[in-house]
Amino acid sequence: MRSEFDFIHHIKKSYGLSRVGDDCAVLPKDAETDILITADMLAEDVDFRLEWTSPELLGHKALAVSLSDIAAMGGRPTFAMLSFGVPESVWSGDFLERFYEGWHGLAREFGVELVGGDVSRIPEKFVIDSIVLGEVSKGKAILRSGAKPGDKIYVTGSLGGAAGGLKLLESGTRHDQDLSQSARELIERQLRPMPRLDLADQFPASAMIDLSDGLSSDLGHICEASGVGAVLYAEQIPIDVRLDSIFSSLDEKLHLALDGGEDFELLFTAERKKTLPPEIADITCIGEITANIAKIELIRGGLASELKPKGFQHFR
Amino acid sequence: MRSEFDFIHHIKKSYGLSRVGDDCAVLPKDAETDILITADMLAEDVDFRLEWTSPELLGHKALAVSLSDIAAMGGRPTFAMLSFGVPESVWSGDFLERFYEGWHGLAREFGVELVGGDVSRIPEKFVIDSIVLGEVSKGKAILRSGAKPGDKIYVTGSLGGAAGGLKLLESGTRHDQDLSQSARELIERQLRPMPRLDLADQFPASAMIDLSDGLSSDLGHICEASGVGAVLYAEQIPIDVRLDSIFSSLDEKLHLALDGGEDFELLFTAERKKTLPPEIADITCIGEITANIAKIELIRGGLASELKPKGFQHFR
Repeated sequence: MRSEFDFIHHIKKSYGLSRVGDDCAVLPKDAETDILITADMLAEDVDFRLEWTSPELLGHKALAVSLSDIAAMGGRPTFAMLSFGVPESVWSGDFLERFYEGWHGLAREFGVELVGGDVSRIPEKFVIDSIVLGEVSKGKAILRSGAKPGDKIYVTGSLGGAAGGLKLLESGTRHDQDLSQSARELIERQLRPMPRLDLADQFPASAMIDLSDGLSSDLGHICEASGVGAVLYAEQIPIDVRLDSIFSSLDEKLHLALDGGEDFELLFTAERKKTLPPEIADITCIGEITANIAKIELIRGGLASELKPKGFQHFR
Repeated sequence: MRSEFDFIHHIKKSYGLSRVGDDCAVLPKDAETDILITADMLAEDVDFRLEWTSPELLGHKALAVSLSDIAAMGGRPTFAMLSFGVPESVWSGDFLERFYEGWHGLAREFGVELVGGDVSRIPEKFVIDSIVLGEVSKGKAILRSGAKPGDKIYVTGSLGGAAGGLKLLESGTRHDQDLSQSARELIERQLRPMPRLDLADQFPASAMIDLSDGLSSDLGHICEASGVGAVLYAEQIPIDVRLDSIFSSLDEKLHLALDGGEDFELLFTAERKKTLPPEIADITCIGEITANIAKIELIRGGLASELKPKGFQHFR
């Protein structure tokens, strides 16, 4: 079955849609500024489960995933909209009020103003479309397509935590139980992600994407858009240390870091000689861009193997 | 049960959201221009039925309803996004390609460019969030809140046709059957609405809204936002003449024109002495604004009765 990426590529090509396909679309505003816009649809039982989260956490996450797309362009968020498809069971209680409470908690932190949206009744499952607008200096949006052979590859923060949290949720652990600190924090990583908007201002990256699908897939998106390949060093990947107390196998932890999504850290490339802002402490170099088009090599224990995209896809 | 209008009002008030609640949000662009943005969520079996329409018609309508919101502000559309929640049954065929074909047919007519969106798998029912951006001269967006006592009330085109088409669909008639011209055109009115973007340029209205929920409800929205009341003259309401061959009762036709939604004509108010652009032939004066706050009177056969909002609501 075609993936959603194939489909979007097909529509983009069929209609010559030059602004489609990055984390955000870049639209002209004025002489100094471009507008960014992104939409993320979250569907019950696919992107979230009501029994795993709370309305407040879901509201937070619905905004966070879109803010992360603004961050991935080097932008700062401004306005937002929320469209809902609401089943009667969700409508009748205080779910939506609590959802907005969580949404606004995060919105206040980044000065985002809710300006519109829509509410529609829907027969069964709750669905949310989160739309965020942002701004970036004219011509300075960081696209997926700017990576060049020789560029270094970096990630912010640590990886695999959100996927580890998802594993715990899938095994029956819940965020409101009495949990070890690691387990609690991993689940929080999954249910309450924080967008990396601290990198936004004139960040010196040649290409950037947020880690929503998973490193192996998201690096693939950069390679495809830039017409390049990559080599990753397994030993340099900053695996979330909180996974240690729960997953003993290094293979499993590496798999979570490579293929698990939703850490909402940023993956970026930068020219070898570029100095990164010293105030951001948690940036790790994990590899480099090659001319080996669309091929990603993973070096582990001195041995190379091809890394296939195994991150999240809606259709496969 | 609270309506979606009550809920939006509650959220708007709770968080001081001054830009929420009109057909579009108005955002600053540059010294000459404001940006308009609107989102409309369409859910299968609530807003449309797959057995009543075609993918192309649905694509057309998804864009048309949002373009109509841009028209209702006196704006012109620029960019658009589409988010989908897609069940596997819809994904596996050529439904989405045909949807985009219909969408683009209308988009080309108004120079609208698709710039992004999202595709998510969803367990059961198809859902679409249609987002459209537009522009309007700075400070010139026509809000719902500008109606003043003494203003005349106008509508474009004729009313009740889309609701008549819906009645035909509900009774088993289909658009691809051998139909009378009236029946075919009424069903087309429902399935393939045309936004009234011909009024956009500096239209001299004091308040405006598009007729999506139905005249009785949409005039109620203007009255509520403007803090006014209204009197409507039943005999002046331009009932769609194509209803004549199918609905014999004047009561029923008047009900379709007053309470049936989705004609996507424009309802507006203008100062009594304002001259309307003569090039727009199909504008009808149907009443006037009063100081009788939140009360709408219907005058029919010389008798006055109170008109309650009976248009479409998702939750009641």
